[in-house]
Amino acid sequence: MLQSPLAFSHALLKQTVHAGDSVIDATAGNGNDTLLLANLVGKDGRVIAFDIQEEAIAITREKLLAAGLNDRVDLQHNGHEHILEICPDSESISAIVFNLGYLPKGDKSIVTIPETTLKALDASLNVLKKKGMLLVMVYHGHPGGKKEKSAVLDFASALPQEHFNVLNYGFINQKNDPPFLLAIEKR
Amino acid sequence: MLQSPLAFSHALLKQTVHAGDSVIDATAGNGNDTLLLANLVGKDGRVIAFDIQEEAIAITREKLLAAGLNDRVDLQHNGHEHILEICPDSESISAIVFNLGYLPKGDKSIVTIPETTLKALDASLNVLKKKGMLLVMVYHGHPGGKKEKSAVLDFASALPQEHFNVLNYGFINQKNDPPFLLAIEKR
Repeated sequence: MLQSPLAFSHALLKQTVHAGDSVIDATAGNGNDTLLLANLVGKDGRVIAFDIQEEAIAITREKLLAAGLNDRVDLQHNGHEHILEICPDSESISAIVFNLGYLPKGDKSIVTIPETTLKALDASLNVLKKKGMLLVMVYHGHPGGKKEKSAVLDFASALPQEHFNVLNYGFINQKNDPPFLLAIEKR
Repeated sequence: MLQSPLAFSHALLKQTVHAGDSVIDATAGNGNDTLLLANLVGKDGRVIAFDIQEEAIAITREKLLAAGLNDRVDLQHNGHEHILEICPDSESISAIVFNLGYLPKGDKSIVTIPETTLKALDASLNVLKKKGMLLVMVYHGHPGGKKEKSAVLDFASALPQEHFNVLNYGFINQKNDPPFLLAIEKR
């Protein structure tokens, strides 16, 4: 059975992230990926989760507290373009996840935008370990979504194949702008 | 780790094909997929393998004989556009594989072409079981390859999402026209 892009992304995370690892959730959002990552890194691991919205940070904090996993997670109420300030060591991170677009059930006028997204993706590739995985779920149905999708595809498809494998995984016969996954593996 | 389109296709086949199933290799070629399928269907299963080239049929027959699996395989020295003549029962086949392009190490002037490929894909969707999988590896680096790629993508992306999931799986940062996989699941 074919997995959805989101399910496939989670399967890749489970393969890639091991106990004790450091990982980043670049868009904490409703905290679902942050929670998954906190489980995967185990008690000796560390998750850094970014979000520019106080609402997203609060929802994520609540989920982590309910699961008793909050001490593994460093919540950053800050834009993901600041990754290098928070996490300056290159090749130290096993996996990084992005969900581009708006906060589901939140204010749909607050969206990720190409300038900061590209800056954050570039920083992500720097901090990513060899064999590490940068997973970008591209939601592009909102105003401005097509422009961001195009900028991200241009960025990803230009990455040198000597250093990165860039996979596009998506359904191509669905209406209503379904999201797709870009999975970028550092070689 | 990210699987190549071919490895991902084989992983999907292993999930989809069970002992006793009937399956089709629409382009036997060097017989590698035919052999994999013959293993997967077991002693009570059946593989129908098509190829228009006598050379491909001979290579495939030799591989099957060496593995002692020839009695599970019906080798058809015929174009795959004749699927419905050989296999008239709708929804009877668990998996169908295509490798578009030319026979590796063979005569590179003999290639699959849009007209017969589209006819064969259409027939394939008819004979495919529900939950069955049509897996198309699209090699498109040869003369005419871009035209066929475009025709197949148009065909696949127009399939109704109520009846089919159509996944595109491919690396987007590689030079030299890397092949990609279209995986079509009947719902």
